[in-house]
This record gives sequence, structure tokens and C-alpha cells, in this order.
Amino acid sequence: MAAFQTAAIIGKFSRREDAGQLRDLAAFLLQRGLSLLVETHTHETIGDPALTTADFARIAAEADIAIVVGGDGTLLSVGRSLAGSGVPLVGVNRGRLGFTTDIALDDMLPALSRILEGLYHPEDRTMMRALLSRRDRPVQESLAFNDVVASRGVQGGMIEFQVFVDGQFAYELRADGLIVATPTGSTAYALSSGGPIVHPSVAGLTMVPVSPHTLSNRPIVISDRSIIEIVVLQATEGSVYFDGRDHDSLLAGDRLEIGIHPHPVRLLHPTDYSYYRTLREKLGWSGAL
Amino acid sequence: MAAFQTAAIIGKFSRREDAGQLRDLAAFLLQRGLSLLVETHTHETIGDPALTTADFARIAAEADIAIVVGGDGTLLSVGRSLAGSGVPLVGVNRGRLGFTTDIALDDMLPALSRILEGLYHPEDRTMMRALLSRRDRPVQESLAFNDVVASRGVQGGMIEFQVFVDGQFAYELRADGLIVATPTGSTAYALSSGGPIVHPSVAGLTMVPVSPHTLSNRPIVISDRSIIEIVVLQATEGSVYFDGRDHDSLLAGDRLEIGIHPHPVRLLHPTDYSYYRTLREKLGWSGAL
Amino acid sequence: MAAFQTAAIIGKFSRREDAGQLRDLAAFLLQRGLSLLVETHTHETIGDPALTTADFARIAAEADIAIVVGGDGTLLSVGRSLAGSGVPLVGVNRGRLGFTTDIALDDMLPALSRILEGLYHPEDRTMMRALLSRRDRPVQESLAFNDVVASRGVQGGMIEFQVFVDGQFAYELRADGLIVATPTGSTAYALSSGGPIVHPSVAGLTMVPVSPHTLSNRPIVISDRSIIEIVVLQATEGSVYFDGRDHDSLLAGDRLEIGIHPHPVRLLHPTDYSYYRTLREKLGWSGAL
Amino acid sequence: MAAFQTAAIIGKFSRREDAGQLRDLAAFLLQRGLSLLVETHTHETIGDPALTTADFARIAAEADIAIVVGGDGTLLSVGRSLAGSGVPLVGVNRGRLGFTTDIALDDMLPALSRILEGLYHPEDRTMMRALLSRRDRPVQESLAFNDVVASRGVQGGMIEFQVFVDGQFAYELRADGLIVATPTGSTAYALSSGGPIVHPSVAGLTMVPVSPHTLSNRPIVISDRSIIEIVVLQATEGSVYFDGRDHDSLLAGDRLEIGIHPHPVRLLHPTDYSYYRTLREKLGWSGAL
Repeated sequence: MAAFQTAAIIGKFSRREDAGQLRDLAAFLLQRGLSLLVETHTHETIGDPALTTADFARIAAEADIAIVVGGDGTLLSVGRSLAGSGVPLVGVNRGRLGFTTDIALDDMLPALSRILEGLYHPEDRTMMRALLSRRDRPVQESLAFNDVVASRGVQGGMIEFQVFVDGQFAYELRADGLIVATPTGSTAYALSSGGPIVHPSVAGLTMVPVSPHTLSNRPIVISDRSIIEIVVLQATEGSVYFDGRDHDSLLAGDRLEIGIHPHPVRLLHPTDYSYYRTLREKLGWSGAL
Repeated sequence: MAAFQTAAIIGKFSRREDAGQLRDLAAFLLQRGLSLLVETHTHETIGDPALTTADFARIAAEADIAIVVGGDGTLLSVGRSLAGSGVPLVGVNRGRLGFTTDIALDDMLPALSRILEGLYHPEDRTMMRALLSRRDRPVQESLAFNDVVASRGVQGGMIEFQVFVDGQFAYELRADGLIVATPTGSTAYALSSGGPIVHPSVAGLTMVPVSPHTLSNRPIVISDRSIIEIVVLQATEGSVYFDGRDHDSLLAGDRLEIGIHPHPVRLLHPTDYSYYRTLREKLGWSGAL
Repeated sequence: MAAFQTAAIIGKFSRREDAGQLRDLAAFLLQRGLSLLVETHTHETIGDPALTTADFARIAAEADIAIVVGGDGTLLSVGRSLAGSGVPLVGVNRGRLGFTTDIALDDMLPALSRILEGLYHPEDRTMMRALLSRRDRPVQESLAFNDVVASRGVQGGMIEFQVFVDGQFAYELRADGLIVATPTGSTAYALSSGGPIVHPSVAGLTMVPVSPHTLSNRPIVISDRSIIEIVVLQATEGSVYFDGRDHDSLLAGDRLEIGIHPHPVRLLHPTDYSYYRTLREKLGWSGAL
Repeated sequence: MAAFQTAAIIGKFSRREDAGQLRDLAAFLLQRGLSLLVETHTHETIGDPALTTADFARIAAEADIAIVVGGDGTLLSVGRSLAGSGVPLVGVNRGRLGFTTDIALDDMLPALSRILEGLYHPEDRTMMRALLSRRDRPVQESLAFNDVVASRGVQGGMIEFQVFVDGQFAYELRADGLIVATPTGSTAYALSSGGPIVHPSVAGLTMVPVSPHTLSNRPIVISDRSIIEIVVLQATEGSVYFDGRDHDSLLAGDRLEIGIHPHPVRLLHPTDYSYYRTLREKLGWSGAL
């Protein structure tokens, strides 16, 4: 593995209180002889004109590694912004460690030292692409790192839809919603709604109904090479959400086509990383009492 | 048991296609010597000026029995409108039999004959009263026959709240929502969200979280003499729903106090009524394969 | 409320290491002027011939209060042994506080002082009676404080049965087993198998299937005045368990009839007792993170 | 694709009533010019000395296709017997179609015609190998097509174990048992116990606890390249089951190591095969109401 030559620093937008630690991070990377790109908004936060500013396009083109300082949400967002670039991400968390941001801010520099020396555990995480079509015309295309959720509106309504997998009819359902989750998203909304935990190394997508109007549906894990098609039959103020943010309305007749992005996002973890420990510590998952 | 002397007819609002059958029903009841009150909107639907029109207040005061023609939703609505009156309800369903409307329209007259002769199975159903307060002032008071739901808004948000039962702290939770259900409501939204079925004869209320942000919550059934208090800590576009309709916004600091209405609603079922058969037929509940 | 005049002491059978604390307890009660009965086996453990020994029959007849030192299992057992006597129980736990044994051994004497002064929170707990019949002849009658479980044998088998409630057919099921639980038992095996928590003040019994061979069964809570009848259709090495101990084999054709014991068991809790706190502390139930 | 030259016929052991149809099947295959091997016990059932008898070893070595007549259990058993041979299986069901035996006996000959012409949908199914060790010595090695289940004995006991995945500690649990299931097994016992459905094309194994003594465990799907190690801490009459049959006792200290067999079993389905239709028809899975 070639050494890292160009590093990018990306912080959560406009957190002035992080400026000091981001500056320390920049100094540390420069001192180690790396070229440095600081993401545009992060650059404003740091406020040091000597540092090179770069937008995501330039980071995608030039960086060998990106250090992301924030929470899981920040890393999801950066993952989408750098989709397809192949730039590996290191997640640093200011607060409680997250699922994907598993280096504590206080431990940032020693942990990065080891990673820059090549001592890390790489892990590829799948991302999804979803295309919303209305009357056979594309309306919106979005990326999702956690989940795509087709959901009823608030007004006591529901959504009714058919699901097809690789062109085969799977089921028809009335529900509060349907969650399609990556392994990364399996520990988020899908888990709250009764879905299984899916290890990131499993090439699967999980479909989990939210409050289905039937006793007999169950979550299903399908191959992530499959194309999922959701056809909306009825919806009262329906919406589709991508990672719980970016959204669009869903109308009867709308089609939502979901598959994975051809390029996964590579995360670099410290070598003592354990997915199962993260489950136990983040979820209180079944550790010894 | 004294015989029924005054009957009310209540149909689903403005279903012209039901006029004929409602007229037959009126004729049948008059022929049997009963006094007849026809609910105001139903009276317009029937369009027979010879029949006595009556609003819900008069029906509550004078009727000995009310025949409700519609679906489960209609009967829930009539139950709320006649709350506290003690007028027993007979539910007639135009389509598939419902949970509470268990006489088919085609079988209406013979089934009513038997009920009017005193051959019926009475069943009391609990209703809830909920009071929403903001800054210690009452904002809205509502009745709910199925459920009271405190819910996040659509925008990918959540609601965070504390629950107290009879003044004792029960738990604090972040979730999509919290459902408080009567036994009648236990087979509706609460069931979709993982709650148990609760037989109408059980004096209990069920609290079921929707997509909770913890692995360790579970539905709980508490005494229906208890007072449940939900204190909203945070909410993004939160709302409270009463039987999935009438609703109000929920803001941080709002308090929702829920208890049962002192007077249950009495349903009169045919003598061959079986709650368990209804479960099997309506829910596909676990019958012999 | 009349003062307590005669107290019984009941410890877990043959725990010599508890002798000292049991002696302290006896001295404390005598000093307060109470008459004292020491359960036969507990008497052997204490080894003080000056104390009055009594079997459960005499305790049932004469005691006004029984102090039970042990774990939840001990208290369940004592509850069954004193069924119908009306003797209220105080549970003292040597280790981690239990669901029903909510006084710590170290805090025993001050906590008992308050209870003997009449400062306590009484709570009635329902117990079940189950009668097993084979070819219309009674085979075994047992009490259960937590649950009655009809279960397959180990050999990869299953059990198939029909359930009737008050003579009405409820459902037919193939499963690993069926749990019928009191509210006390709702936080034990029934909870592990997906049942709801049921507050002790709810007059309900819960039926929870274990690994049912259908997607559409759900736990149901029914009135505790109901009689549940389980008819075994097929079983491979089937067994029935009462509180997970005392058991008998189950054969095809066997009938198990379950109802509540007419006399509940009264527990006396310290006045700061909170059922919900017990849930949070014992189960990790959904407390604030 | 080379044509099939040698076919094997394997029926469920000693079902005399199938002899006629097995003879028809043999005649059909011979008529189409195939060499024919009839499994030893099946040969006895057919009772035609002109047919060539063969044990599983010879079938494994020589057959290009095996026609299995029986239920899902028969096909699981044949799959284990031919493990590693690469002989593709066609499942014919005498009764209700199964999950893997998706050709009806009445439709057998026309369906086989199409398959022999090369018109089929091939599907590879993963099998597991499990090694039980006691005091570091191997005790038993078994294959499982559906699941490996570590389970408590009947006597109201439980099993306590630690789970490691690829040498990493995953969790420690007390439970009735732990199910490790292939995708094929995900619709069997694992589903009854709350596991997700896993499509056969997903390279994953699912771990599902049975009645765990914690609220916070959840089923997890891990890569099928992983090695699962279950270390028994305590067990009362514990047992391990392989596909619910072949079993061994489990003692404290025992280790169970589970991974997949290097060679999957290939099933040949009719071209109109739909996994999702099978789910809907076999499980009543959430089809349109």
C-alpha cells in the first residue's frame, strides 16, 4: 500500500468551537509531510489563510485520505459527497463515539499517526442510489448511506405500495412506511423498526416495514446486487427520505428504484476496531450483564 | 331487562347509496312498535320527512339503542359522540365485517330481530379522555376509542418524552411516537407497532412505542384506572392524534394527560359473537392452517 | 389496619451462611413484641431451639406477616405454599434486588421497622391453578405464580395444540410451546418470548407462543376471570411446567385447564417502592440514556 | 451447458405408496436416453431389479442430476448426503409444495422435460459445517442445511454461552437457545424465533437467540465467510441440533465452531420459479389482501 500523500480535513459545518482542534490537526498533518486540502466550509471555520481550501470535487480528485471530524451524520454526509471518488475516510467524533466515527477527538493525533503508518483496518461500506420517477419521468436521484424510507404523511394516513425485486413481485403492503437499509443503516432506523443487524461485510440490503397493516410481513435481507422497485398505490401526504434528510413527496403512481452505488465508501478504522464492541457499547447490545 | 322502546338510526354521513337500506331499517323498527330517532345527517340521506330527526344530544337523552350502519370508523365516531350517554350500540357493516361492526348489512333485519327480543351479547368498551396542556393551560380535550398517539412530524424528526403513570416516572424515550391504546385499539395501530392483543374485558391500557431509539423498551399494559402523563421534552413538528384524526401540534414542554372516560360504550353483539373468531377472520390470526 | 402480632420467618432452604442474619431477624422481631414462627427448614438453618418451629400449614393458620429471605424464586415458592392463607409476604433479597424481593438484606431491619409500623405499600399478586387431565381424568393439579408452560420435548420436536378461552375456540398452533403468564410472570419467560409487560394491578393473563410455526400469532392478554383450556393435538416428548419446576409429561389428547387461584398473594413493599423503577433497574428498561 | 447424461432418483425412505410414481419417473428418464442410478433404499421401494442401484457415494461420483421425491426434509437430507459432490438437485413434492421442493408430483414429468432440455433456474444454497469440541478434542462434526441450534434441555433450564465471530467477542447470553441459520434455514426455526428472511443469494449466516434473558439482543446477519464460535458457559441438559435431528449433548466448556461448507448445493428450479411467491404461498407472507 502506497503511503498517503494528500490528506483532506472536513469538519462539521460552522462549528467555531472546533477551530482549535482542526488547526492542531492541520499542523499535525503538515508536519508529517502530507499535502493538505481543507474543505471550503471547514476552511472558514479554521480561519487560517495559509491552508489550502478545496471543494468536494477537488478533494475527490486529489485526496488520498479524508479526516472527517463530526458525528455519524457528518460522516454519512461526506460519504455521499465523495461517492465514487475512492477517497478513504477516517471518522473522528467530538462526543460519544459513533458507529462510523470511532476515534475520539482526544485520541485523534496518536490514532492518526498509526493510520498514516499503514496500521489500520479498512472496511468498505455500501451506499445506495435511489431514483424517483413520476409518470415515467425522473423526478429526483439521491444517494443514501443509511436508508431510503418511503413514508406516509403525518395526518393519520398510511402508504400503500407494491415491492418488486429484480422485476419479480415481492409483496403489497399498507404501512406507515418501508425502510430500505444498507448494512450501515441496519443499526439506525431499520433497527428501531424491528429489522436485524447486518454486518457491513454482508452484501445485502434490508427491507423493513414500519407498522405494517398485516401480521405476516417480516424484514427481509436481499442481495445488494438486486434492484428494488417500490410502486406507490396510494399515499396520504407520502414522502421519501434519503438518510432522513433530503426528501420529496410521494404520490400514487410514483416509482422508486433503489440499488447500490457501484463504488463503496472505504472507512479506515484503528486496528483494535471491533464492530461487535461498537454494537455493545452503542446499543447496549446483549453484553454480559 | 326492559325492552327497547326508542331506537336511533345513525349512518355514515352522506352515503346516498345506503338510503334504501336505511329506509328499510326505519320501516322495520317502526313496524316493531319502537319510537324512532334518525340522526340529522342520516335523516338527510334517507330523505323521508315523516321520520323524526334528532341530533346526538337528543339521541343520547332519549334512545335505548342505536343502530350504527357503517364501518368500524363510523362506530368509533358515534361512540365518541354518545360518550357517557349509556346508549348501547349495534354495529352494522356494509362491507367486510369489522372488529366492532359485526352484523352484515344483508343479515341486518333478522339479526336485529333477535337483539330486540333480548337475545344479544353485551360488551362494554372503554374509551379514553386526553387533555393536552401547554404552559399549564389546557389546549385541547379529546376522546379516543382506539388510541392516543404522540408522534413526530414527518421531516425525518423524532419525539422525545417522559412517561409518568399515576405520578411515578415510568421511562424516557426517543421514538417516532408513543401509542396509548384501549383494548379496542389494541388490534389497530398498536398491533401494527408490536403491541399485544388485549381482550375488551381486560381493564387495561397499553403503551406501545413506535420505532423507539432503544433496544430495551417493550409494550406495557397498565391498569385503566391509571392516569398516564406524557411530557414532551423535544419534538420536531410533533403532533398528537386521537383515533388517528382530530389532532393538535405537540411542542417541547407540552403535557398530555390520559385516562379512561368514566362511562364505557356498550356494544350489543349477536349471541353467536366470538371475539376470537373476529381476530382470526380479520387479522388472519393463527387459525388452523 | 390491625397491628401485626405473629410473624413468620422463611429462608431459602439450607443456606447455612444466612443463619446469622436470620437470627438477627428473629431477635429483632421478638424484641418488637411479636410472636414468632420459624419455618421448619429455616429453623434447622438457624439452629436455635428456643425459637418456635412451624410448618407451612401452621404459618398459614397463625401468621399475620411472613418475612421471606431469599430470591424471587424463594418468594414464588413461598407464595405457592401459603396460597389461600392471606398471609402477606415481605421479600428480602440477599443479592441483587429482585422483582418481588425488593428489600436488601443490609437494609432489612430498618425497612421492616417501617413496615411493622404500618408504613408499606400493599400489592396483590395473582396466582394460577392448573389442572392437567388425561382421558378425562385428572392427572396433576398445580399452582403457578409466574407461568404455566406447555412445551415440546428436546428432540427437535414441537407441540401442536388448540386453545379455548371460556369454552370459545381461540386458535390452533404448532410451536415450541405456549406460555400462560400472570402479571408477575410477564417479566419472566413470557417477556423473553416477546410478550408484553403487564402491571400487577391488571386483572389479566397473557398467552405467549414460543417460536410459533406461523407469522400471524401475537401475544394476547385476556381477563383473569377466564378459564383457558389447552388441548394437546400432538406432542413429541411434550411437558408442562409450573413456574419452570414441577412438571409433567404432555401427551396427545391431554387437556390443561388454567384459571386464577381465588386468593391472590399480598406483598408488602416499602413505601418508596416503584414498579417502574424495578423494571428499569432489573431489565434495563428504557431509562433515560 | 452440457446435457445431463446420468440421473439419480432418490425418494423418501420406504414410502411404498410412491413406488408407482417412482417407476414412472424411472421409465421417463430411461426413455429420454439417460443413464439411471436409483438410490439403494429407493431401489427397494421401487422393487424393479432391472434398475441400477447406487449408494450416495456412487451417486455423488457419477450423477449429473438428482431427482429428489419427498418433502423439504428429504431434500435437506439428500443435500447433506451429497455435500461437495456438485450434483444438482431437483425437488419434487408429493404434498404441498415446499420451500426447496417446488415441483408438484402431478406435474413432475412435464416439469422435468423442460429442466432436462436446459430450461431451468439454477440456485446455489449454502450448507454449514459444525464442529463440536470438548476439552479441546473434537466430539462430533456435522453438516446443516437449515440451522445449527445450541439449546437448553427441557427441565426448565437455560443455556449460557459466549459467541465469537472470527475470533472477536460478539456477546454473552442466557437463553433457551441460539440458532445459527443459513439463508435456507432463515424461513424455518429462525423465522419462528424472530429472525429475518434472508434471500438465498445473500452470502450471510443469521444468529437468532431463542427467548433470550435480555431485552437488548437482536438477530444479526454476518458474512458466511465468518467462523462462528459458541462457547458454552453453563447448560442444564444442553444439546446441539443439526437441522433439528442429529444431535449431541452440550456441556459447560464445550465449543461449537460453525462455518460454511466450501461447496454449496445447487438446486434446479423451473424457470417460472419465484422465491417471493414461495414466501407468500408458504408463509402467507404479506401478499395483497
